[in-house]
Amino acid sequence: MPGYFKDLEKEFVITNMKPRRPLLNYLWNETFLAELSHFGFGKSFLRVNAESRRHLILEGDAGRMVYIKDRETGEFYDANRNYKNYDFDKHECHVGIGYQNIVSEYKGLEVSFGVTIPQNHSAELWQVKVRNTSGTSKKISVVPSARVDVNLTWHLAYGIADYDENIGGLYFSHDAFDIEDLYEGIFFKADTPHSSYDVNAVNFKGLYNGWDEPQGLKAEQLSCRSMSFEQEYCAAMQFDLDLEPSEEKVINIALGVVRNREEAKEVANACLVKGYFEAAVKTVKDDADRMDSVCSVKTPDEYLNKTTNTWLKRQISLGKTWGRVYGKGFRDIMQDIAGMASFDIPMAKKKIMDCLDHMRINGNPIRQFEPIMEVPYYDGASWIPAAVLVYLNESADLSILDEKCKYIDSNHVDTVFDHMYRGLRFLLDNRGKHNLVLWGAGDWNDSIDNAGNKLIGESAWLSIATVKAVKEFCQILEIMGGKEDLLASISKENEVLKAAIIEHAFEGDRFIYGYNDWDEKIGSKENEQGKFYLNPQTWAVLADIVDYDTLQKLMDGVEEKLKCDFGYIQSAPPYSKKNPHIGRLSYFLPGGYENGGVYIHGVTFKIVADCILKNADRAYESVKLIRCNNPKNPDPGVEPYAVSNMYLGPSEPNRPGYAYFSWITGSAGWLYRGITEYILGVRSEFNGLRVDPCLPSEWNEVEVSRIYRGATYNITIKKTGEKSVVMDGKSLDGNLLPITPEGSVHTVELTY
Amino acid sequence: MPGYFKDLEKEFVITNMKPRRPLLNYLWNETFLAELSHFGFGKSFLRVNAESRRHLILEGDAGRMVYIKDRETGEFYDANRNYKNYDFDKHECHVGIGYQNIVSEYKGLEVSFGVTIPQNHSAELWQVKVRNTSGTSKKISVVPSARVDVNLTWHLAYGIADYDENIGGLYFSHDAFDIEDLYEGIFFKADTPHSSYDVNAVNFKGLYNGWDEPQGLKAEQLSCRSMSFEQEYCAAMQFDLDLEPSEEKVINIALGVVRNREEAKEVANACLVKGYFEAAVKTVKDDADRMDSVCSVKTPDEYLNKTTNTWLKRQISLGKTWGRVYGKGFRDIMQDIAGMASFDIPMAKKKIMDCLDHMRINGNPIRQFEPIMEVPYYDGASWIPAAVLVYLNESADLSILDEKCKYIDSNHVDTVFDHMYRGLRFLLDNRGKHNLVLWGAGDWNDSIDNAGNKLIGESAWLSIATVKAVKEFCQILEIMGGKEDLLASISKENEVLKAAIIEHAFEGDRFIYGYNDWDEKIGSKENEQGKFYLNPQTWAVLADIVDYDTLQKLMDGVEEKLKCDFGYIQSAPPYSKKNPHIGRLSYFLPGGYENGGVYIHGVTFKIVADCILKNADRAYESVKLIRCNNPKNPDPGVEPYAVSNMYLGPSEPNRPGYAYFSWITGSAGWLYRGITEYILGVRSEFNGLRVDPCLPSEWNEVEVSRIYRGATYNITIKKTGEKSVVMDGKSLDGNLLPITPEGSVHTVELTY
Repeated sequence: MPGYFKDLEKEFVITNMKPRRPLLNYLWNETFLAELSHFGFGKSFLRVNAESRRHLILEGDAGRMVYIKDRETGEFYDANRNYKNYDFDKHECHVGIGYQNIVSEYKGLEVSFGVTIPQNHSAELWQVKVRNTSGTSKKISVVPSARVDVNLTWHLAYGIADYDENIGGLYFSHDAFDIEDLYEGIFFKADTPHSSYDVNAVNFKGLYNGWDEPQGLKAEQLSCRSMSFEQEYCAAMQFDLDLEPSEEKVINIALGVVRNREEAKEVANACLVKGYFEAAVKTVKDDADRMDSVCSVKTPDEYLNKTTNTWLKRQISLGKTWGRVYGKGFRDIMQDIAGMASFDIPMAKKKIMDCLDHMRINGNPIRQFEPIMEVPYYDGASWIPAAVLVYLNESADLSILDEKCKYIDSNHVDTVFDHMYRGLRFLLDNRGKHNLVLWGAGDWNDSIDNAGNKLIGESAWLSIATVKAVKEFCQILEIMGGKEDLLASISKENEVLKAAIIEHAFEGDRFIYGYNDWDEKIGSKENEQGKFYLNPQTWAVLADIVDYDTLQKLMDGVEEKLKCDFGYIQSAPPYSKKNPHIGRLSYFLPGGYENGGVYIHGVTFKIVADCILKNADRAYESVKLIRCNNPKNPDPGVEPYAVSNMYLGPSEPNRPGYAYFSWITGSAGWLYRGITEYILGVRSEFNGLRVDPCLPSEWNEVEVSRIYRGATYNITIKKTGEKSVVMDGKSLDGNLLPITPEGSVHTVELTY
Repeated sequence: MPGYFKDLEKEFVITNMKPRRPLLNYLWNETFLAELSHFGFGKSFLRVNAESRRHLILEGDAGRMVYIKDRETGEFYDANRNYKNYDFDKHECHVGIGYQNIVSEYKGLEVSFGVTIPQNHSAELWQVKVRNTSGTSKKISVVPSARVDVNLTWHLAYGIADYDENIGGLYFSHDAFDIEDLYEGIFFKADTPHSSYDVNAVNFKGLYNGWDEPQGLKAEQLSCRSMSFEQEYCAAMQFDLDLEPSEEKVINIALGVVRNREEAKEVANACLVKGYFEAAVKTVKDDADRMDSVCSVKTPDEYLNKTTNTWLKRQISLGKTWGRVYGKGFRDIMQDIAGMASFDIPMAKKKIMDCLDHMRINGNPIRQFEPIMEVPYYDGASWIPAAVLVYLNESADLSILDEKCKYIDSNHVDTVFDHMYRGLRFLLDNRGKHNLVLWGAGDWNDSIDNAGNKLIGESAWLSIATVKAVKEFCQILEIMGGKEDLLASISKENEVLKAAIIEHAFEGDRFIYGYNDWDEKIGSKENEQGKFYLNPQTWAVLADIVDYDTLQKLMDGVEEKLKCDFGYIQSAPPYSKKNPHIGRLSYFLPGGYENGGVYIHGVTFKIVADCILKNADRAYESVKLIRCNNPKNPDPGVEPYAVSNMYLGPSEPNRPGYAYFSWITGSAGWLYRGITEYILGVRSEFNGLRVDPCLPSEWNEVEVSRIYRGATYNITIKKTGEKSVVMDGKSLDGNLLPITPEGSVHTVELTY
């Protein structure tokens, strides 16, 4: 690992500042997001509307810098990146919940560069602390600089930047004609008097210099020149500080995107109130503490404890607000909601309704609602009941079912319940010649994108997912009560679908993936490549579609055919022959994405399936295989505090096991639920808290502290060989803990 | 100036390798273009179709590099960029016609890095020559590297690169699904055996290194590893060479974009035939020599001679094929055609017809046909007759009028003549309440983009331009003969239009720019800002719309109101108040683009207008004001061998006189015609070659050698105070030189 967890602070401290790939952290609120590498580089932006973002910091090198200059010698260096590879005494990045802090020590100066964002502004807050660790007094300059994104159009003639007296800071404007919702400006202001500034990246850096050696620092002071019509701007301010031995000085900076100069002044001043940085950090930290307390686990696996209690929740929270950051997918966010409903009930409700507003009137949600991606995927609706059911179980708030939601292509408005049912009807009513659900332009497997476009092909996986969804819908109907007719009729429909799946998609040891538009099987014994897919088997378990023995056989096949040193590949053998009847999947090189890559999302489905079949060791081994500390896949590149979307598969010739796309994946939600609800077995139901553990053989005792309906359950699970459940000293029949008054605290001991 | 002209070679040698901004050169054929900075950086791409380009070299830093390593010490440097600022004995860039050559000398090695492109392939040819200028033998490695653009989609899983035995070079593939006209591959092959290679930019450069110090060079050999799923690739090959004192070795490299491996092999081999690089350079050079011989001038102004004879033609040639590089505008290319018809008649015909294919059936050409820009500008058709007339005058080839052209929005096909007439009808038939031509979404002045969208506003400038176009059309009708009825009727229409212009757009000392959709005048005395525009006055002269004295008065106004130290601003005073009834022009900061910037295109119109009014000194002074060697605007940043699109105007607070957008401007064509046809006065007419000089007072004698209808006219013009024209010893009446047999050579002396 490139560092260590600092538990009390909920930090991961990166000590290897040259990891295999840059390690990312995300800071965000509901409308603003910053993506920071361990050097502090990376874009940040305001969400203006579904189709448009307004960037503050440019993607790429040197986005945020803190230069330090010795005013006596003129020597300078940068404290966050250390471009020149100086021999720093310390150089580390503290990745925190909602902040990041890069700490360096060099030539008797400790510099810490903290970044956080406030909850209510489209802004970043920087805090630079400089401490004199030498024995002599020092005269230094601190020069923070930001590569700000000023040119919103290619017309350079709108761009102008200068120090603005009224704002008391730098202001960068691009007041373009005829742009709606124009955030013309960027401000950059400090709480400390500056001695000089620059606004022009070309001038500050020097046209022929690099960010390792900005020419602006070679003069005693920065240029203090305004600039206009420039290709690239920067916000740089020089602060001349004198430090006695052991003295520390702190500079707070706010920078943000705004509509105009008045707003700049207002926001900058709000963000530079004394203690604002610390308060912003505390807000996020307090919320993380609150979320941690909702479900806190203690197992013999320390890494699992840390990530489950804190970091997976952080990652899921990112997903529920920002989707996959590059875009907000309907099904992605629905899954994240199911992942986070337990620790943020009101937000889950809000997000369910936000998502449902993006259903088409025909019952098929759009694939991605920001930016709008209209491709007619067919799986959207199958993800709704699970999210709603988790919400109901967690909250008992039936009112959500009557909340009103919109449609994306109609003025019609109806309820969450209506949307959910309309979605299922779309699935149940769009069937093919084998009576399976149509495939459309895609389902979970985005890369089988040319199998069902003609609306002939049928997806077996989506049919199985529909069975599961209808079952969850039936549970909701039971919770609602008085829906017996619908319950009966839709259950019957579900049985018909199930029968069709078994008749047409079952091959004894596997479920196929489907029939394409040319009535060719995909994921079948008959195929030469892509003969066996992971998800149809795991979802057969999730949907409980055949008997236990058969399900075990399917999952044995998974172990046998798909397992590799760092997880389970999505299908085998990988395609090497390009097949337009499948789509891009077969054009991907073997080992990439769904074509023989370890798609971690799929592995997390498998973990749940293993637990359902009580294959505890398989489940736990899967958890360990996909982790960054798997000794068989040393240094996959992933952040130890985030789950990745995939590893390159074993058939990839150059970098098998290499991790792409951390943070932005549905894997976090499913892994979190797999660990807490299935391995540890503590999951909310409508009538109580189920404790149904599936502990690996190497664990004998675990503790879970869980808040459910406002009451705290401190649960100890022990393997004694004897089945018993004792709550507050009283023995219970079965493993469903009863609902208890809000605020009450209970001790539960479960043995088995 | 950042270097000097080397006349015999038609080179400009850049000796200041840190100029104010990177100096560009373009290399191109009909389908492939490379944009090279003086370091050899810059994108290159294949035109796949109107909407799509396939890049070979990535935009930005370090696109093309030549590293040199001493194999005995392990020390290395780069010979083209000199990132580390080593104390080179020589470092210069030879900008040639169709090639570029960066020459350096350091530690006893002279390295020259030549780049050219072939005429028939989408490829670059590199030639690296290394000469040992020291007294001792040397063991070195030469490592050329290219930042190639491999990932055509964001699906990294399509990308794979390695050495390909069959090709005998590196091959980079991105065989994506479902892309039409897919050029999946890039090859990179040398004619010299390599000792190692790398294909992975991250590996070669090092994730935490810069291009100044690639980590790949720190080992004895490059990795020789394949790579896939990578973010960025590079093509790098190491050649280990031993050089005796004075010995020179040459490595030829070809790199290009192709559809597949077979094509890669074929093209690479074709490009590496012995002498191919030299032949490719010679082809372009020969064509430049040929073009120079068509019109070669000798005046007391050496800079004018060099640029007129060679570089302006080169710039116009770029325009006629690639438009403004970022896109191909109808009117832009039409003007470039008028600029180049004299020196490339067959190409002029081809390009006229290409352009006309992009007219709408209503007679209004689209603003830009690559990529398609449908904005309903109204001026397109006004540029056609001039180009056709120049072609006819130059070639006497009336057959062009009967050539068939398409329409962009109809299956109808008719002739060049029909298109031209349909275009004029569009202008004449779309008139507003003052009987002026409608403004639409824009005319020449792109930035008045919200004055006429409602199709109420009328452009006075466009009305004047229409008068000029109709006059040119009438000349064509006269040339054609037998068109008396049309000639009479359209001339009459033109008189009506002219009368409307004078009635509604003339204010005594100026023509206004127009009336907007709200019936407000723009460019009028009544306005607070933007009271006086350049183009309506100069075009009033070009269209000969009022009497001589009035025209002089208009042009006096130009001198008085618009002149600045480096040209004439487009309108005065610049707008500082944003006015949505004008459009983005008024949102631009004062001094930028058309809002008080020196739009050089406008100044070149003025030069022609000055000559028409025989204001010779004004014309020549204008030529000198806009040049890079104007002492009042030292170092505007522009390439001495290219004309820029604009200078920031005097009202710009930070960098007045700074040049943007060199090469890609219609200014080159107009400046070329202004100098040769108006100042020197040698212009083709249908019935002969006109010699109508307008020499500045400081010139007494000039020579022009001109090929017209295949015959060569060696013309000397002298100011003697006596009017005479003598051709081949015989006195002529008037200044129209007669048409003479192809191949004949004539001596002409004109005095006045």
